[in-house]
Amino acid sequence: MSERFERGEARLAELDPTLQRGIEKGLAPIAPDFARYMIEFGFGDIYARPGLDLKQRQLVTMAALAALGHPQRQLSGHIRAALNVGLTPNEITEALMQVALYAGFPAALNALLNAKEVFAERGVSLQTESDGDR
Amino acid sequence: MSERFERGEARLAELDPTLQRGIEKGLAPIAPDFARYMIEFGFGDIYARPGLDLKQRQLVTMAALAALGHPQRQLSGHIRAALNVGLTPNEITEALMQVALYAGFPAALNALLNAKEVFAERGVSLQTESDGDR
Amino acid sequence: MSERFERGEARLAELDPTLQRGIEKGLAPIAPDFARYMIEFGFGDIYARPGLDLKQRQLVTMAALAALGHPQRQLSGHIRAALNVGLTPNEITEALMQVALYAGFPAALNALLNAKEVFAERGVSLQTESDGDR
Amino acid sequence: MSERFERGEARLAELDPTLQRGIEKGLAPIAPDFARYMIEFGFGDIYARPGLDLKQRQLVTMAALAALGHPQRQLSGHIRAALNVGLTPNEITEALMQVALYAGFPAALNALLNAKEVFAERGVSLQTESDGDR
Amino acid sequence: MSERFERGEARLAELDPTLQRGIEKGLAPIAPDFARYMIEFGFGDIYARPGLDLKQRQLVTMAALAALGHPQRQLSGHIRAALNVGLTPNEITEALMQVALYAGFPAALNALLNAKEVFAERGVSLQTESDGDR
Amino acid sequence: MSERFERGEARLAELDPTLQRGIEKGLAPIAPDFARYMIEFGFGDIYARPGLDLKQRQLVTMAALAALGHPQRQLSGHIRAALNVGLTPNEITEALMQVALYAGFPAALNALLNAKEVFAERGVSLQTESDGDR
Repeated sequence: MSERFERGEARLAELDPTLQRGIEKGLAPIAPDFARYMIEFGFGDIYARPGLDLKQRQLVTMAALAALGHPQRQLSGHIRAALNVGLTPNEITEALMQVALYAGFPAALNALLNAKEVFAERGVSLQTESDGDR
Repeated sequence: MSERFERGEARLAELDPTLQRGIEKGLAPIAPDFARYMIEFGFGDIYARPGLDLKQRQLVTMAALAALGHPQRQLSGHIRAALNVGLTPNEITEALMQVALYAGFPAALNALLNAKEVFAERGVSLQTESDGDR
Repeated sequence: MSERFERGEARLAELDPTLQRGIEKGLAPIAPDFARYMIEFGFGDIYARPGLDLKQRQLVTMAALAALGHPQRQLSGHIRAALNVGLTPNEITEALMQVALYAGFPAALNALLNAKEVFAERGVSLQTESDGDR
Repeated sequence: MSERFERGEARLAELDPTLQRGIEKGLAPIAPDFARYMIEFGFGDIYARPGLDLKQRQLVTMAALAALGHPQRQLSGHIRAALNVGLTPNEITEALMQVALYAGFPAALNALLNAKEVFAERGVSLQTESDGDR
Repeated sequence: MSERFERGEARLAELDPTLQRGIEKGLAPIAPDFARYMIEFGFGDIYARPGLDLKQRQLVTMAALAALGHPQRQLSGHIRAALNVGLTPNEITEALMQVALYAGFPAALNALLNAKEVFAERGVSLQTESDGDR
Repeated sequence: MSERFERGEARLAELDPTLQRGIEKGLAPIAPDFARYMIEFGFGDIYARPGLDLKQRQLVTMAALAALGHPQRQLSGHIRAALNVGLTPNEITEALMQVALYAGFPAALNALLNAKEVFAERGVSLQTESDGDR
């Protein structure tokens, strides 16, 4: 097992301890090497770099996924990870709302509804900071 | 002039004092209301919300724009704004590299080459933190 | 309640009287301000502008959503609204077919299958104008 | 020459009499059949269908192209055609502004700046209907 | 029935003998002409051209669909067709993995999970060629 | 220098001997590690896998890039590489035309015009196989 793989495993475990097994199990019958690449390159090379902390990295990932719109499954996973690394539900919803400016309302709305499900599943209660109908 | 507009103006000035004039001048002959909407809604409603600071908001914006790929003009502007609000060049390049995982290498590569031009124009010297060919 | 909100409410009611409640209820637990923004900015600022009537606006919206491909939920809602403001089922299918030229067959096909469901749910019978296998 | 081709030619001539020659000349050295397909299928099959008039079809096309973001060259051509078939500059800018709701501000902004160039080149003076800073 | 339609029918039958009926049945109540266009233009004009064999054409189609991300229904159909024209399961997974480089990991991952379902449904057992953790 | 890097270098040299230097030089001032990742992961891990030959891989890459639409710079590079590994100009244009079905005419048209420039620059004369206006 390469050093890159181990570093990726460690990083993934910080994001979500169940994620690695999910990736490996899902891809085992079809593309096991691809699971390894995701861990080695995705988490061992990129995510393990210094320069941004995991909260910052989750903002980047959620914004990219929400803007693309189609990868809702991956967005769920990364919202869970965002909670795990300490982003508050409010920070997550703020980030997803902001995506409306760059990728349109439907992309942001679907991302928010996705987050709503994740928060419910996790029993997270959101203290949303309203702008008070300024 | 509405309170939302003034709040947007103030937010925009923090991001880049020349941006408002650019938006208004560019849109004046064709859609002046649209310039106002960008300031009121984009910067007065969304960007002015509490919950994320401007460094965090620039990470979200750059990631969304880089993932979409086509809005390179807007990406340049937001890389400039990111420097203005205190993101380091290294944080910016880290964020853009990470986009490769979610939107592919070309999206990340073009965003990085875009950032290179902005950094050069700003005379920013990048102390890139290499991972040392681990 | 702002004038913009009231104008948006009125516009939304013309498109679909059940839509506002859907938006507000869906977003209440996670981002109530976002529901307000959609009504104020989306429907009170943009959709309420003169210059295009609601039939024209629905053509624009359906084309944009179908071209993006991922926002199928929003496309359903706007096909319903298109019927409500008086676009005929035939005009809707013509618009969606045309999207094939600019965004490919799958985008158009999925939009048409989406419309088929909406038409069925509404009991709309389509008198499609065939080009008669010219 | 097929009936479909002739129907396409006629439709194209209504949109812009110079367009056919542009398509054929551009593709002649690389894919002449593709020029024919665009005329036969794009304009002879789809655009020549009854059910939507050419103003409606241009709204659909401009919205789809603006939402995708990358086909700016095609968007220019279709803004010209929109003027030719009688859409007013104001209707065109209204349609492009509306795209912001579904595909984000940068997509709409770049489309508007594209339209600004086309209007300038055509000497079109825009009587924009402001919403009067309501 | 036009020559183009017959050529398209023949091509479609090579890809998947059940596909034509699926397309026609799905679109019959809403856009029967669109089903005909898909067969005439999609399969009778483009797919029936010499210059690429059907294995090559399926590589192109799967890559385009996987990169776009949203047309998962069409991707399933074309993975089935790819098996029918003789691409091996391994060639299919290699093509889909490669899409990660250009459109990101989620696009490739969702395409691979889609292929996994198709392979299971077809009882295809994949002899994946691991790179042996080089 | 890792084995992955060397394998990537070798693969890249087969595609285009000038490509590695271009990548490294372009990214040197901003993200040298990213150049290394492209070579290690992109060409050393993925492109160096058995299972597809380089002609097949270039079909996949060109289709993905053309479908996304925005990465025209990368598409040029991969059209050059496609010629280098033995795809004929005719195979390349066939692949790009086919993208029209899945991502629309503008994506295919811009890719073809891109290929026209590459072919001209390389002095490639295209013997296009017309379908003879069947």
